[in-house]
This record gives sequence, structure tokens and C-alpha cells, in this order.
Amino acid sequence: MSQTPATDALEARFRRLSALSGAAGVLSWDRLVMMPPGGAEARAEQTAALDVLAHEMLIASDVAELLARAAGEPLDDWRAANRTEMKRRHAHATALSSALVEAQSRATSRAEELWRPARAKSDFTIVRDALAEVVRLTQEAAAAKADALGVEPYDALLDTYEPGGSAARIDALFAELETALPPMLDAVIERQNRAGGPIPLGGPFAIPAQRTLARQVMEILGFDFAHGRLDETLHPFCGGVPDDVRVTTRFNEDGFVAGVMAVIHETGHALYERGLPMAWRHQPVGEARGMVLHESQSLLMEMQACRSPAFLGLFSGVAREVFGGVGAGWEADNLHRIYTHVARGFIRVEADEVTYPLHVILRTRLERALLSGDLTVAELPGAWAEGMRTLFGVTPPDDARGCLQDIHWFDGAIGYFPTYTLGALAAAQLFRAAVAAEPGIPDAIGRGDFTPLLGWLRTHVHGKASSASTDAILTAATGAPLGAEAFLGHLKNRYLDD
Amino acid sequence: MSQTPATDALEARFRRLSALSGAAGVLSWDRLVMMPPGGAEARAEQTAALDVLAHEMLIASDVAELLARAAGEPLDDWRAANRTEMKRRHAHATALSSALVEAQSRATSRAEELWRPARAKSDFTIVRDALAEVVRLTQEAAAAKADALGVEPYDALLDTYEPGGSAARIDALFAELETALPPMLDAVIERQNRAGGPIPLGGPFAIPAQRTLARQVMEILGFDFAHGRLDETLHPFCGGVPDDVRVTTRFNEDGFVAGVMAVIHETGHALYERGLPMAWRHQPVGEARGMVLHESQSLLMEMQACRSPAFLGLFSGVAREVFGGVGAGWEADNLHRIYTHVARGFIRVEADEVTYPLHVILRTRLERALLSGDLTVAELPGAWAEGMRTLFGVTPPDDARGCLQDIHWFDGAIGYFPTYTLGALAAAQLFRAAVAAEPGIPDAIGRGDFTPLLGWLRTHVHGKASSASTDAILTAATGAPLGAEAFLGHLKNRYLDD
Repeated sequence: MSQTPATDALEARFRRLSALSGAAGVLSWDRLVMMPPGGAEARAEQTAALDVLAHEMLIASDVAELLARAAGEPLDDWRAANRTEMKRRHAHATALSSALVEAQSRATSRAEELWRPARAKSDFTIVRDALAEVVRLTQEAAAAKADALGVEPYDALLDTYEPGGSAARIDALFAELETALPPMLDAVIERQNRAGGPIPLGGPFAIPAQRTLARQVMEILGFDFAHGRLDETLHPFCGGVPDDVRVTTRFNEDGFVAGVMAVIHETGHALYERGLPMAWRHQPVGEARGMVLHESQSLLMEMQACRSPAFLGLFSGVAREVFGGVGAGWEADNLHRIYTHVARGFIRVEADEVTYPLHVILRTRLERALLSGDLTVAELPGAWAEGMRTLFGVTPPDDARGCLQDIHWFDGAIGYFPTYTLGALAAAQLFRAAVAAEPGIPDAIGRGDFTPLLGWLRTHVHGKASSASTDAILTAATGAPLGAEAFLGHLKNRYLDD
Repeated sequence: MSQTPATDALEARFRRLSALSGAAGVLSWDRLVMMPPGGAEARAEQTAALDVLAHEMLIASDVAELLARAAGEPLDDWRAANRTEMKRRHAHATALSSALVEAQSRATSRAEELWRPARAKSDFTIVRDALAEVVRLTQEAAAAKADALGVEPYDALLDTYEPGGSAARIDALFAELETALPPMLDAVIERQNRAGGPIPLGGPFAIPAQRTLARQVMEILGFDFAHGRLDETLHPFCGGVPDDVRVTTRFNEDGFVAGVMAVIHETGHALYERGLPMAWRHQPVGEARGMVLHESQSLLMEMQACRSPAFLGLFSGVAREVFGGVGAGWEADNLHRIYTHVARGFIRVEADEVTYPLHVILRTRLERALLSGDLTVAELPGAWAEGMRTLFGVTPPDDARGCLQDIHWFDGAIGYFPTYTLGALAAAQLFRAAVAAEPGIPDAIGRGDFTPLLGWLRTHVHGKASSASTDAILTAATGAPLGAEAFLGHLKNRYLDD
């Protein structure tokens, strides 16, 4: 006889929930990568059915009772952490009615579908009403979750993406960045202007060759194509499940620089998923801790490891081979100048690491104002342009390069943007700790051997899954909770020192 | 107040079931077309979760009661037919335990995954035990359904694919074919030998050009790429949902003849799905009637419409344009000789329409013996080879060209094979009736205008969905229930007359 019958029963439930969530992940990937436009309505029905069934399973009348009984059962640390995660999900789910969950699923499917033509035509009016509906339902959900969790509405949404996240913590860290970054940005740009820009690489670069390069780089980083794919979409992302990770990017014949770096970024996400512990594959505790650590893994690869002189030396050879590149533009030095070029631009996903936090600060402010009702959806394009002028001193020429550039809000993700910058801070902190622990890591990266770095990440981050909080994992790995110091030190070192 | 509250409630349930079934369809397509091998286990979990949830929804305690109450509600013909379909599905579902449904889902996922390497290596032992498990579970399910439906076990399985199908009916029709076909086959082959074979088309034929040709032909037939895709797999199929139909084929550089004809076949299936009535999109009565009519639609396109001299005249021009083909081999006459060449071959999907029924008769015999236990899975390769010798006078050189060639049994589909040949009979019967009703159809096909044919099919087959039985639909459309006469007349006309 099991001594933990309630926990056993809960684990069986959550195993099935994990399968449903994996199924929803495949449907979502297919929608963005494969689905013809005429399939949208049927897909929205399918997704809504899965969302509602998963919600019904979580709020079923006996789950609360099982959780109560499980509280008295003798569990080891991982099972206890799993129980904590189950309780968190149950609390989020019971805060919402099935009708609201279904309405959210349909509204985000619709807004996401309209976002594509809206962005292509740079016409916000196409998607305005659909976004307003998503925001209205998000306000409703945030209020309900705030009541249930006893936190502010924005914190309740943050908790979905980053368990335990709070606006107060974000305000403190973002204030440090807002103080340090503008003068640093001026200094970096002035220094770059003195040094002269990088030599541009003449295109066009054939898409099939870019695909080859991307796959080679993914393999160098440790991506296993027996457990994943690379495809192409409008907006790069990493989806799927740990044993079948789906990376996407976008290629452009005019240049390969951005496309391959997007692949490296998404591969960082993919490696985290793949490194989650096999023993806890289908339980909440076995999932990634949250979006801050998730983003730390993509940015650690993209910003810390792969914009380093060591990696770019290797990459210079690989890229020359693929494209038959000849001349000084293809030297590691020039690639380093390209990949560390800093500029005040309009597009977040193309931004350098110095200006990126300012993009996130803008979006965080706007989404908090949308949630509180201080800003209406109709006012969003104007507020975005105004924010760009204040923070960057530039005005977007159109909404495609303004408030239509990101899919997130249309997909219902409010409370997600801050995790990009918190992830950048965590990435700097983790990479510094990894190199301090294993000083051979940079040289190995230069040889195309990512195993020392990946080994350290598997042990200190990936393998921990959701067994502890983000801060506990960071403290165990780096000696301190999340802070801005390593990130600012990294920027100073890369962009202002020699 | 609704006068039909029980029916309303059932329709809401079945709408969600339809969404779940659509989701499972996307997962299945992805598994066969996109999924990396390492994703198989996770996908099996996802599929099993959907199968079990759908089964649980069908057997929920209140469904029987709702069906009983719905029996007394005033319904129009379509809603009444929908109620009949709901009852049929409920009867099938309640016959099986959830444990058996889950075991079947996992066993078929596993067998299908092992079938691929087994076929590639022509090694039956790789998949033997997995297939034995599938057969064992199918026997169990067939016995349970036989009890519940009051029919023989094999008829209970037939009913899954072809509602109302029976072994007795199949025996009668197949006996006609077994009498007529062998002497006809001798006569056709002798006649072809006298005439000399077709001029072979020299390859290789670049795969991208074959893709272009396939897409052009699909568009000529009326396929709408805003509501579907064409991809490549080991085994051609048509999946997805009516508003997002996923056609697959396989291309081979050595020849384009088989690949493009597989596309035409699957496009016939796709057009049926697309032509189902919009008003009944997510209800059982709105689904395709069964696999006999489904196969009739693919074979009507492949065998009746697109192997006709009229179509091949058009096709000759399109193919020459795509491949830059020059010479007598590319003339319509020679393409007609290629596409009506009859031979005793090993592979069902490559078989001509004269020998195809013999392939089906073999499989039908073997699967009935497997189901009854008269034949064990271990004995299957030997029994297959023996059957080929008896029916065709040839012995397969290996199991890849023998019992490993088809995915069906590994996928749990026993009772499916006969529908191919019943579909061929229905195709001949329907095409004859269509041309009798609209004599302009052959000329229009020759001009690449499929709208008269498609219009007739939309009215007389596609638009009927599951509102009546296969025989009722055939009788209304052609004046008679399913028979062998039109098919045998068609073969005589095409292969023995001039």
C-alpha cells in the first residue's frame, strides 16, 4: 500500500494535464509554422477545447480535497516541491471560470490571427478591437487572480510567467538600469563613432545556405535534431516539449546576422527544455522554473557565449565556409564589431543588449497602464511613439515598427515582457559564475566545444527544474539572488573597457 | 425556451468532441510529417490523453440519459440523423473500457513507430511483438463491440470505418470480383503484350519540379491552398480537418508518375472533406459518411477522371511544361498507356485498378484470420507470401514488399482494407451516373475545368455528409445500391474494348 495515495492520485492527474499541455503546444507550433490561413477557426475551436478541458481537470471538485490530504503525506523534497507547484496551478485555475478561460482562448486566437495582416500592412485598426477584447479579458482574469492570491493584479499576471515575481522587485531593478544605461549608451555610441563602424557584409545570402549555417551552429551548441526541429516563422520562438523541441527563426536574403543569432537565442531556450530532469518529465516540478531563468538561458547563449570574441573566431570560419565569404569583413574582429554594434533602433528583437532593457521598460510601463485602465488600446500607438521619443529620442515611422512589432499582447501575454530583462541580468550573473567555476569554458567555446558550459548549466540550472525558486537557484549557482551588478559589469567590460 | 434541450446539450458535447478529434488529427499529421524520432514517446502520451478524454466524454453517465430524452424531441431530418450518429458513437464507446482505449492508443503509437524501421530494413521481427499486442487488443475490442452491437466481431470493426458494413455483403461482392477478374487480367495482359509496352520516360525528375506539378494538378482539381497543404511522407495520406486538409505524398527522382497520381488520389479525399456542409461542421452528421464513400471520392478522381484520355491530354501539356519533356513519350497516348498499364506487382499502392482488388482480397482474408485467431502474427509473413502466390502467381522477395508495405494494421486499422475495393466499385458507379446526368463532364475535364464534376459530387455525395446511409446516398445518386457491375463494365471498356 502506498503511504501517499493522495499525492499518487494528483501525480496521475498532472501527468495527463502535462500531456494536454504538450498537445496544445504542438497545435500552437503548427498554427504559427504550418497552418494555412483558412484553418484558423477550426484551430481556435481545438485550442479552446483543450484549454477548457485542462481547466476543468484542475478545478475538479476532488482536487482541492486531494491537495489537502496530500499536505499530510510524507514526501521527499522533489515530491514536496511538486505538491507546491500543483497547489500554485490549482490556485490560478480556480480563480477563473471556465467561461472566462474559453473566452480568453478564443480572443487570443482571434487577435493573434489578425495581428499578422495588421503588422504586414502596418495597420493597427485591423487588430485594435480584437486586442481590446484580449485586454478586457486579461483585466478580468488579473482581478480574479489578485483576489485569490492576495496580490496586486499585475503581480498575479507576473506569477503566471515568473512565480513569485513582483512589480516592486522589478521597479527596483529597472530603476538601477534606468540610472546606469542612458549615460552608458551615450558613452558607447560616442566610442563606436570614434572607432568607425563595422565593414558591412555584402549580400544577398541565399536562404538555403543560411539554413545550413543555422543548423551547424545549433549542433555546435549541443542541439539534438533527433529531439527537435528548426523551421521558419514571422516571429522566432521555441515551442514543443522537452523531447521534441521546435525552434523557429526568420531568414532574410539581405543578411544572415540577425537570423542566425535568433537561432542561437532560441537554441538556448531549447537546451534548457532538453536539460530538464528525465525523472520528472510529466510533472509540474519537472518544468522550467519560469520565464526569467528561461530567458537567462537564451540570452546566456546569445549575448554571453556567442557574442564573445572566442565564439566569433570560430563562427567566422564556419560562416566563411558556408557562404564562400572572402575579405576583411569576414574576420572575427569585424564580426565582433557587427555583433556588438549599439544603436537606438525601433525593433526590440533586433536590439543590442545595451538598448534592449529600454525597450522592455517601455513595454512594461505600457502594459501596466493598459491593465490598470490608465491607457486604452486606442491610445496605444500614440503612447508607444511618445515613449520611444522619451526613452530613445526617436519616433517610429509606422506601427509595424511600433506597437505591432511583438506578438505578445495579442497572444494575451501581459506580465511577460519584464522577464526578458530580468533574464538578461540572470544570464550575466550565471555566465560569470560558470566561468569562475570552470575557467576553461571560454577556450572550449572557441574550439566549438560547448560541453563544459552546458554541463555546468545542466547541473546548476536545467536539472533543478522547478524544485526551488528562481532566487534560490541563482543563489546556489552564483552566491547571490538576482541583481543588476553582473549585467552592468558585463556591459562596461564589453563596450567600454578594452 | 428550446423544445430540444437534451439534443442541444448533446450537440454542445459533440461539438467539443469534434474539436478534440480535430486536435488529435493535427497531432497525427505532425507525427507522420514533422515529428523528430525522439518525440515519439511524448506524442504517444499526448495522443493517449486525447483519446481517453474523448472516450470519457462519450461514456459520461449523463450521455445515455440525454440520448434517451432526445429520442422524444421534435427534430428535423438532419438533427434526427445527427442523433442517430451520436447514438452509434455512444454505443461504440460504451462497449470499451477507458483502460482498453488507452492501451490501444499506446500500442498503436508504438507499433506505428516501429513499423518505420521494420519496413526500411525489411525486418518483420522489429515490429512483430508490437503488432501482436495491437492484434490482441483489437480482438478484445472487437469482442466487446460485437456483444454491444449484436453483430460478429469483424462486422463490429467494419462498422467503425463503414457504418452498417458486413462481411456477408463483402463476401458477395468480392466473390463477383474473384470470378470476373482473373480471366480479365489474363486477357488484359495478353492484349497489352501484343500492343507492346509504353515508352518509358527518362529521368531523373527533380523533386522541386514534381512538387510544382503536384500543386498545379491539385489546383486544377479544385484544391484550395488557403484551406490545406501538400507535404511529403513515407505513406501518402489525407488528414487534418475540412477547413485545413493536409494531403501528403511521396516523390521519387526516378519517376513522377506514381507521386502525382497519389496526390490526385489524396486530393479526391480532400475535396470530399472540403465539400462537407458548413452548417454541420462540428457535428457527427456533418462528417464524411464512411470510408467506402471516402475512397470512392479519391478513386473517382484517380481512376475515373484522371486516367481518362481527356485528362491525360491536358496533363501531357502541364507535365511537359514543368519538366521540359520532349518526344513521343510525353504524348497523351503514351501517358495513357503508362497510366493504364496492368501488371501483377507486389505493392498495393502502386497497383493498377485491375489487380488492386486482389491485393485487398488478400488483406481482407488475412485480417479476418488474424482477428479470429486462425492466423498468428508470427505466421503472417508466410501466409502473405503464400496468398500472393495463390492470387497473383508471384512471391514477394522480402517483407518490405510483403506484409510490411502498409501502415494500416500497425495503426490498429483492421476492417479497413475492404473499403478500398468497395470504394472502387462506388467510384465507377458514381462517375457513370455523373456523366449520364451531365454529359459535358469529360470535355470539361479535358479543358482542366473540374467544376461540373465537382458540382455534381458536392450535391450528390459531399453535401449529404452522414445524413443517410452509404446505400441510400448511392441509390439517390445512381439509382442503385452498391454493386460490382459499373466497375466491371468500366474495366472492360477501358482495358478490353476500343
